[in-house]
Amino acid sequence: FIKMNTKLNNFEEYLKNTIEDKFISLNRYKAGKPIEEIKREIFKNKKVKILKLASNENLTGVDKTILKQLQKELKNIYYYPDDSLYYLLNELEGFYKIKKENIVVGNGAVELIRYIYQILVKKGDKIFIPHPSFAIYYIDANLFEAQLITYNLMPPDFQIKYEDIKNNLDKIDDPIKLLIICSPNNPTGSIIFKNDLEKVLNYALNRNIIVILDEAYFEFVDNENYHNGLELLKEYPNLIVLRTFSKVFALAGLRIGIAFTNQYISKALNNIRLPFNVNTLAQKATILALKNYNTFVDKIKSIINQKYFLYSKLDQLKKEFNIDYIKTYSNFIAIRVKDANKVFNELLLEGIIVRPASDMNLGDYIRVTISPFKSHNELFIKKFKKVLKKI
Amino acid sequence: FIKMNTKLNNFEEYLKNTIEDKFISLNRYKAGKPIEEIKREIFKNKKVKILKLASNENLTGVDKTILKQLQKELKNIYYYPDDSLYYLLNELEGFYKIKKENIVVGNGAVELIRYIYQILVKKGDKIFIPHPSFAIYYIDANLFEAQLITYNLMPPDFQIKYEDIKNNLDKIDDPIKLLIICSPNNPTGSIIFKNDLEKVLNYALNRNIIVILDEAYFEFVDNENYHNGLELLKEYPNLIVLRTFSKVFALAGLRIGIAFTNQYISKALNNIRLPFNVNTLAQKATILALKNYNTFVDKIKSIINQKYFLYSKLDQLKKEFNIDYIKTYSNFIAIRVKDANKVFNELLLEGIIVRPASDMNLGDYIRVTISPFKSHNELFIKKFKKVLKKI
Repeated sequence: FIKMNTKLNNFEEYLKNTIEDKFISLNRYKAGKPIEEIKREIFKNKKVKILKLASNENLTGVDKTILKQLQKELKNIYYYPDDSLYYLLNELEGFYKIKKENIVVGNGAVELIRYIYQILVKKGDKIFIPHPSFAIYYIDANLFEAQLITYNLMPPDFQIKYEDIKNNLDKIDDPIKLLIICSPNNPTGSIIFKNDLEKVLNYALNRNIIVILDEAYFEFVDNENYHNGLELLKEYPNLIVLRTFSKVFALAGLRIGIAFTNQYISKALNNIRLPFNVNTLAQKATILALKNYNTFVDKIKSIINQKYFLYSKLDQLKKEFNIDYIKTYSNFIAIRVKDANKVFNELLLEGIIVRPASDMNLGDYIRVTISPFKSHNELFIKKFKKVLKKI
Repeated sequence: FIKMNTKLNNFEEYLKNTIEDKFISLNRYKAGKPIEEIKREIFKNKKVKILKLASNENLTGVDKTILKQLQKELKNIYYYPDDSLYYLLNELEGFYKIKKENIVVGNGAVELIRYIYQILVKKGDKIFIPHPSFAIYYIDANLFEAQLITYNLMPPDFQIKYEDIKNNLDKIDDPIKLLIICSPNNPTGSIIFKNDLEKVLNYALNRNIIVILDEAYFEFVDNENYHNGLELLKEYPNLIVLRTFSKVFALAGLRIGIAFTNQYISKALNNIRLPFNVNTLAQKATILALKNYNTFVDKIKSIINQKYFLYSKLDQLKKEFNIDYIKTYSNFIAIRVKDANKVFNELLLEGIIVRPASDMNLGDYIRVTISPFKSHNELFIKKFKKVLKKI
């Protein structure tokens, strides 16, 4: 190995004065543990079947038609991606009925969140967010030195309500730069009703607050009072809707997130978008997913069915183990346990990866992905029960 | 289509006051035109063979062994990428003999350049750059409102020399935040000699200037006075070396760039690195490229041989058409012509995509990728001659 930087000690002083402390002390997002990591670290590479229920992927995997076409596309990866996103934007425009001028595509939605903060948030700006919410909004607030203003969503349903948002915002005279609503919310799985959302958007518009409506889990909602953010765009120029292809569309590994918003904001976001940020296969896969949308309909149904299966199983465990869960509109479920970190670690030893929701500002809970397969969910329940008995 | 934002007019005033003008007026990087775009726009989707010599890809394409293994890997893309980059960092550490603590991986080197600016560059900071250089350094300087200080590299060789850098920097009393050296330089193809580079690094270290040494075209250099930035890291804590897998490794479509630097800088860069920024296939492909490094050796030789073939052909055209070219150490060559934009456009009509180097701050030149295939280069010369005759 090359021994690095013998002169670092002298230069370090300069770096310490030059690179702000925050860049050194920032905590990165804690991702769900990959299967390979658990194989390596816990099972010492023995042949073990590991079930990952940690990152809300669609465990039916990649559709075969899509897979085959992507395999063909691979031979072209020696060329740069199309930075103009020509075919991708055409497809998005056609599918979502939103003009391409109103669309921004990112290397995952996390890249778009970073860009939104970058064009909007200055040091000291106030960002309002029902708590808990998706961890990235907190992390990027630290990065841009925004002031986060939160209020706690309440058990049992953790629903996001207009009245709560209004009451809390009414107390703040200062301008609010951003209001962030994840619906379905992560990690609670709860939603805001359409009626309430429209009131929030009106309130926000009157106060010049830009609203990020994060609909990453849009497709999993089985509630007729739910919203479709894209339909609200026409009325609300203060609205940015986020979607992702990492969840129902089973493309998390390729990284595709989409923002829909008015032309003024989308222009700014597109201007700071890194060249070639959306890789060749991500562009192709997104097109194929939309062209084959019907193949996802049954998968969504399976996941929703499995949600009710899990409810029934968890209801049986409720009293015996003093646990509870939050009713979810998503493909994950937050389960309250006595010691979330311990349950998480014990489940790892059983080959089941979940998330301790303390990483996501929701202590005492674990967040568990709902598999479309009954066998997966049965296995989870079996192991979960075993762990609960031990604790 | 959903008609967007009827209330935008009222809200637009707020947006205009909130989103800085620069975000609206920034120009994005102009990429080399994709083959599909030329097929569509010029040849109206007729079956035409188009040759892209615009973005310095390795036209031998993706190695078959790598392609097959990536095709297998595709089935896993429903999972998120490994955000810890475990196997990738192990492979990079082993191959380059640089510890993983000193490595940062990006969604292309452009993402890393953005991060470097983000942690280092504040409004008004001075960035010094021999001119012309890679366009992204200029674009991101605009984004972060840095003050670019340039001096012109000079024909015929456009070599980057210590004396020139020193003489220019000596005139500036103010602190210089960054000094950027692309070697081989883009779009000139010229280099800095190792001797000179070390003097530059010493000079910079004494003045607390951080140096980005962009070695994107490292592998193409056939000159014994060339540097290997990785070996200089041990002496220079002010050094950041950039490499890419888009050029010789033929993985431009998957997006992989690497930064090597001291632990303090790499820690900050990694902290602001977006979650999952390196997609699953990019991670795998990089590992496979390094494991199969020997397969690239012959490809590099072919490209260098073809460079000399092109020299001989261009030498023949020199006097007849009053053109000239810059001696290159890269897989592209900058050719001076009478009207670069016209030559570019006429070549497009002939099915050959090059770059007008005016996009890259080098007027009067076109930049042409050197193909490893003689037939490609012969075709280019044939069409180029035809175009020169017309103009």
